[in-house]
Amino acid sequence: MQAPSRRRRWPGLPSPSAREAASMYGTAVAVLLVILVAALQGSAPSADPFPYHIPLDPEGTLQLSWNVSYAQELVHFQLLARQPGAGVLFGMSDRGELENADLVVLWTDGDRAYFGDAWSDQKGQLHLDPQQDYQLLQAQKTPEGLYLLFKRPFATCDPKDYFIEDGTVHLVYGLLEEPFPSLEAINTSSLRTGLQRVQLLKPNISVPTLPSDLHTLEIRAPDVLIPGQETTYWCYITELPEEFPRHHIVMYEPIVTEGNEALVHHMEVFQCAAEFESFPHFSGPCDSKMKPSRLNYCRHVLAAWALGAKAFYYPEEAGLAFGGAGSSRYLRLEVHYHNPLKIQGRRDSSGIRLFYTATLRPHDAAIMELGLVYTPVMAIPPREPAFVLTGYCTAKCTRLALPPAGIHIFASQLHTHLTGRQVVTVLVRDGREREVVNRDSHYSPHFQEIRMLKKVVSVRPGDVLITSCTYNTRDREQATVGGFGILEEMCVNYVHYYPQTQLELCKSAVDPGFLQKYFHLVNRFNSEDVCTCPQASVTQQFASVPWNSFNRDVLRALYGFAPISMHCNKSSAVRFQGEWSLQPLPEIISTLQEPAPRCPASRGQSPAGPAVVSIGRGKG
Amino acid sequence: MQAPSRRRRWPGLPSPSAREAASMYGTAVAVLLVILVAALQGSAPSADPFPYHIPLDPEGTLQLSWNVSYAQELVHFQLLARQPGAGVLFGMSDRGELENADLVVLWTDGDRAYFGDAWSDQKGQLHLDPQQDYQLLQAQKTPEGLYLLFKRPFATCDPKDYFIEDGTVHLVYGLLEEPFPSLEAINTSSLRTGLQRVQLLKPNISVPTLPSDLHTLEIRAPDVLIPGQETTYWCYITELPEEFPRHHIVMYEPIVTEGNEALVHHMEVFQCAAEFESFPHFSGPCDSKMKPSRLNYCRHVLAAWALGAKAFYYPEEAGLAFGGAGSSRYLRLEVHYHNPLKIQGRRDSSGIRLFYTATLRPHDAAIMELGLVYTPVMAIPPREPAFVLTGYCTAKCTRLALPPAGIHIFASQLHTHLTGRQVVTVLVRDGREREVVNRDSHYSPHFQEIRMLKKVVSVRPGDVLITSCTYNTRDREQATVGGFGILEEMCVNYVHYYPQTQLELCKSAVDPGFLQKYFHLVNRFNSEDVCTCPQASVTQQFASVPWNSFNRDVLRALYGFAPISMHCNKSSAVRFQGEWSLQPLPEIISTLQEPAPRCPASRGQSPAGPAVVSIGRGKG
Repeated sequence: MQAPSRRRRWPGLPSPSAREAASMYGTAVAVLLVILVAALQGSAPSADPFPYHIPLDPEGTLQLSWNVSYAQELVHFQLLARQPGAGVLFGMSDRGELENADLVVLWTDGDRAYFGDAWSDQKGQLHLDPQQDYQLLQAQKTPEGLYLLFKRPFATCDPKDYFIEDGTVHLVYGLLEEPFPSLEAINTSSLRTGLQRVQLLKPNISVPTLPSDLHTLEIRAPDVLIPGQETTYWCYITELPEEFPRHHIVMYEPIVTEGNEALVHHMEVFQCAAEFESFPHFSGPCDSKMKPSRLNYCRHVLAAWALGAKAFYYPEEAGLAFGGAGSSRYLRLEVHYHNPLKIQGRRDSSGIRLFYTATLRPHDAAIMELGLVYTPVMAIPPREPAFVLTGYCTAKCTRLALPPAGIHIFASQLHTHLTGRQVVTVLVRDGREREVVNRDSHYSPHFQEIRMLKKVVSVRPGDVLITSCTYNTRDREQATVGGFGILEEMCVNYVHYYPQTQLELCKSAVDPGFLQKYFHLVNRFNSEDVCTCPQASVTQQFASVPWNSFNRDVLRALYGFAPISMHCNKSSAVRFQGEWSLQPLPEIISTLQEPAPRCPASRGQSPAGPAVVSIGRGKG
Repeated sequence: MQAPSRRRRWPGLPSPSAREAASMYGTAVAVLLVILVAALQGSAPSADPFPYHIPLDPEGTLQLSWNVSYAQELVHFQLLARQPGAGVLFGMSDRGELENADLVVLWTDGDRAYFGDAWSDQKGQLHLDPQQDYQLLQAQKTPEGLYLLFKRPFATCDPKDYFIEDGTVHLVYGLLEEPFPSLEAINTSSLRTGLQRVQLLKPNISVPTLPSDLHTLEIRAPDVLIPGQETTYWCYITELPEEFPRHHIVMYEPIVTEGNEALVHHMEVFQCAAEFESFPHFSGPCDSKMKPSRLNYCRHVLAAWALGAKAFYYPEEAGLAFGGAGSSRYLRLEVHYHNPLKIQGRRDSSGIRLFYTATLRPHDAAIMELGLVYTPVMAIPPREPAFVLTGYCTAKCTRLALPPAGIHIFASQLHTHLTGRQVVTVLVRDGREREVVNRDSHYSPHFQEIRMLKKVVSVRPGDVLITSCTYNTRDREQATVGGFGILEEMCVNYVHYYPQTQLELCKSAVDPGFLQKYFHLVNRFNSEDVCTCPQASVTQQFASVPWNSFNRDVLRALYGFAPISMHCNKSSAVRFQGEWSLQPLPEIISTLQEPAPRCPASRGQSPAGPAVVSIGRGKG
C-alpha cells in the first residue's frame, strides 16, 4: 500500500461541506477504502469486500462491484468509471429503460462535483428525489479511474424508487460528456447509455465441503474468432474420454478469457443423447448451415452460466451424474457472444470448468420441467401488456411420482420465449400456497441463468406446483400461441432437485374441448368469425379471433376455469399410468402475498438535497 | 380568560422529556391553546379554530373537532375526552373496523401517560408504528375533560397508515378503562369501541354573498319522542303557506336539538309531487302502518344533511326554486335517529333551516340522476369482495340535452343500497378521462350526504359521464340484481347543477339481448342450468347461475363489452327523441390515475417511539 501522491480534487476544489458525512472522506486514501468496506460487511472480513463484479458497458469502461447485506437489507456498490468524463449516472429500472428509472448521478457544473439520488421521468428528464436514499460513502480518483462507493437499502418507500428484489435486476448507466448547470438540465436521451441485466441479490450460500478427489474438466471454445456482429451463439462439440466412468459433478464455474468479460453473455454445457453412438465434431455458429443436424440432439443441460454469476455448487448430499454406461460421451458447449459494438478480430476461449468426483454422493441430482406443455391451445392475445398463463403440476401427479420423503429443489432456471416478462413457481400444500420456489418479477428471456435458491424447497407427494408466466404482446398483431418456435411461447421452470425420480415433466395445458367451446362462444358474440370446423388448426382459429375486450376477458376466464390435460411423464414420450385428461384445476384456498417493499424503520440521516462531493486521490 | 388554578398532571407526574417537543407544552394554559391553534391555521385567525365538530360515541363523551390545511396537506384534530379513564384510542380504518386500523393512543401504565402513533393488526392487537406521524401538540386537563391536540398529514407513506382522502372517512375510537404495561398489551377487542363516519376533508369553499332579502323557513320535527330502538326514520309532513310564490333556496343548515347531537344521524327535506292537490299531515316513523301511502310521492330532494356537515350554500349564480305554480306546497322531513344505546324518553325537534329569497338568481339549480337504470339486468354475483358496475351518460345524450354553454355541477349525492362500498363519477371528453366529478373510496350506504364539490365541474354537450359503483356481496348467497328493493342494488349519483335543463335522467343498463346470450353461454359451459325460456324473469335466471369463476369473469367481461340501453330522459317517463337501444359503450383512450398518497418531502422531526406526555391544566 502507498500513500496518495497528490491530493488533487476532481474536478474543482469545492470547500468541504459540513452537512454531508460523505465529504468527510474527501481526503481519504486507498487504504481507508479497504478498511472501510471490510467494516461495512459486518462480519469477518473476506478476501474480497465486493464478491460480485460485472462490466456495465460493452467496452468495460464502467465496472460495477457489489456485496449484499441481508441483515441490513442493503447493497453496497462500488462503481469504477475508467473515463468519468463530466460524470456518470447509474441505476435501475423495471426493464432497463432510461425513462422512469431510479438513478444515482455524479455530475459537475464545471466548478464543483455533486452526487444525488434522482429519478428520470417518462421523457428521460432527471429530477432530484425528495428523499436521498443512495448514500455516498466515498469518491476517489485513482490512476485506474474514478471509484464511487455508495449504498442503497433494498426498499426505500420513496414511490419514485426501485424496489430491489430477488431475480433479475435491470441496471442502467449513462456517461456525461459535458458539465450540466443542474441535475434537472440532464436528459438521459442525450447521453450515451445502456443496460446490463444481473441477479443483484445473490443467495448467501455457504460453500459445501468439496470431496478430496476433486477433478476438473474444462469445456472451452477453442480459440474462437468472435464474429463482428451483435449476436452469436457459438456451438462446440467435445467428448469425454472413452470408458469414462460414472462421476458426480459437484460444482462448476465460468472461465472467461481476460478482456472479453463484456462480450461473453452466457454459456451452457449440454450432454448429447445416448441413443447415438457418436456425434460429429464441430466448432462454429449454432445457426451455421455447416452445423451437423445431429447436434440438435444435445439438449440435456449439465451446466449453465450467465453474466454476473459465480460458481454453481451442488448440495453436499447430491451431484449431477455424468459418464458411465447409458449416457453419451459427447458434450456441446454453447457460448452467447453479445457484441453490440461489432468489435472485429477478438479471440476467445471461454467456457465452463466442471468439478467432478468419482466418490459418488448419496443422491443423484436431476432436472424436472414444470409449467406449460408446448401446445398452441395456450395462447396470448395480441397487444396485451401483461397476460398470465399458468401451468400446473398436480397433486395426483406428485402423489404418484414422488418418493414418500419428497424431493428437494435447490436450483431453478426459468424459461420463456421473447414475450416473457415475469415467471413464478409457487408450492401449494392442502390448497394453501406455502412458499415461492422461484420468482422473477423482472424476468428477461435474454437472461436465463440457473439460479441457486436462497432456501431449498421440499416437495412432498400430494403437493402442487404452479408456474405462472406473464407475457407482453404489445407489439404483436396476432395471437401468440404456445410452441417450440421462437415467435411462439413457452412457460417453463427447469427445477434442479434430488433425489432423482422418474418424473421428468409435470406440465399442463387447457383441455382442447373447452377451448373449442370458447371458439363457439366467440362466434355467438361476434357473428361467425372463427372456423370451428374440424380441419381448422388451433393456431388458425386463434388467428381469426377478433380481439375485442370480451374475447380477451373470456379467454382469460377460460384459462382460469376450464379443466386441464396433464403431462405427468417419465420422459417426454412416456406417461405415468392414469387418467390425465379433463383434470380439475387445483383449488387454492389461500394465496401468498406479493413481495412488497418494507420501509426501513428509520430513514437515518438522509440529506434533503444533493451532496457536494470531494474526491480523494488513492493509489494506482 | 383565566389562569390555571392548579398544575396537577394526569395521571402521574412524569419528568419532562427533552426528546419530544410535545412535552414542552406540559404546563401550557388554555390561553396558549387558542393562540397556538389560530397560528396553526396559517391565515387570518377565524372565530373558531376548529370549524368542524362531531361526537364520536353515542353518549357524546368523546368529542372531535378538526380543521383542514390544504396548503400543508394536514389535519389538526382536537379530541375532548370527558371521561378519559385510563386513556383513549382514536384513528381511522377502511370501513370502521378496529382491526387493521391506523390509530393514535393515549395510555397510561399507571405511572406515566404516553402518546403514540400505532396500528392494529388483523386480530386487533396494537403495535407501535416505526414512524410516528401523529404529532401531539398539546394535552390538557380541564373541568370539561381531557383535551388532546394533534396533527396528521393526509399521507405519511408509512404502509401501515391510513391515507386521508376525499369522501367518507371511517373514524374509530376506543376507551381504555385500566392501565396497560405497554402499547403492545392493548387489544381493541377488549375495549369499548365504536365508529363514526364523517367527511373529514371538507371543501374549502368561500361563503357566497347572500341576498339582502333573506328569509328563513324551519322544517322541524315537532317535539318527537325518539323511540328507544337503534334505527328510526321519522317522517313529518308540513306545507308552505297558500299562494306561496316562487323563491330560490340559496342555503340551508341543520338545526339539531341540543343534547341530541349524537342521535340525529341525517335529515332530508323532500318536496311532494305537484300532481296531488293535497297531502295528509303526518308525524311518525316512516315505516309505520299509519303512514298515508300518498307520502311515497314526496321524493324530490330539496335539502339533505348528515352528521358532521355544516351549512350548504348554492353558488351565487343559482338557487333551488320552490313555491309558485306547478310545484307542490307540501314538504316531507325525514330524520334518521341512530340510537344504538336505545336511550328512552329523549325528545327532539331537529330539522333543517332553509334560507330563501324572492330575488331570483340568474339560474335555477336542478338535480340530474347519473348511473344505472333500476333494472335486474345489472347484477352482482354473490360472494364478491369488490364487483364493479358502471352506468353511462353518453355523448349522444349530452349532445342532445345540454345547452351549448354546458352545465355546471357544484354538488353531488352518491347513492347505493346496502352492498355499495365505493362510488365514482368521471367526466370524459374526446375519449379521455378529464376530471373526477365526485369520488368516495370509503363510501357507506349509511352515510349519504349532499356534498359540495371542491371544484365546480362543467359538462359540455358531447361529454360523457361515467359512474362506477363497487359492491361487496361477500355475505350473500344469491346474485344481487338491480332494482328498488333494499336488498336489490342501485348505482346513482344525484348531481346538483345549473342552469336547469330538461335532462333529469342520464343512465344506462346492459342490453337485455346480450344478457340472454350470456345465459346461453353459461349453459353451454355448465350443462343447462339457466332457463333461457321466455317465461323466466332475469332475476330468476340470475338466481340459477352456478357462480363458478368462469361465470363470474364472463359476466364482468359482458358488462365491460356489451352494448347498452340508454335512459336519456326528460322525466322518468319521457325520453328524448332518438335511438337509445344497442348503443356502443363509450370508448376511453386514456384514464385518470387513482389518487395515491403523496409522501411529505421531509418527515420533519417525527420521533421514533411514543412520547411521554405531560398534561397541563387549563381553564374550565
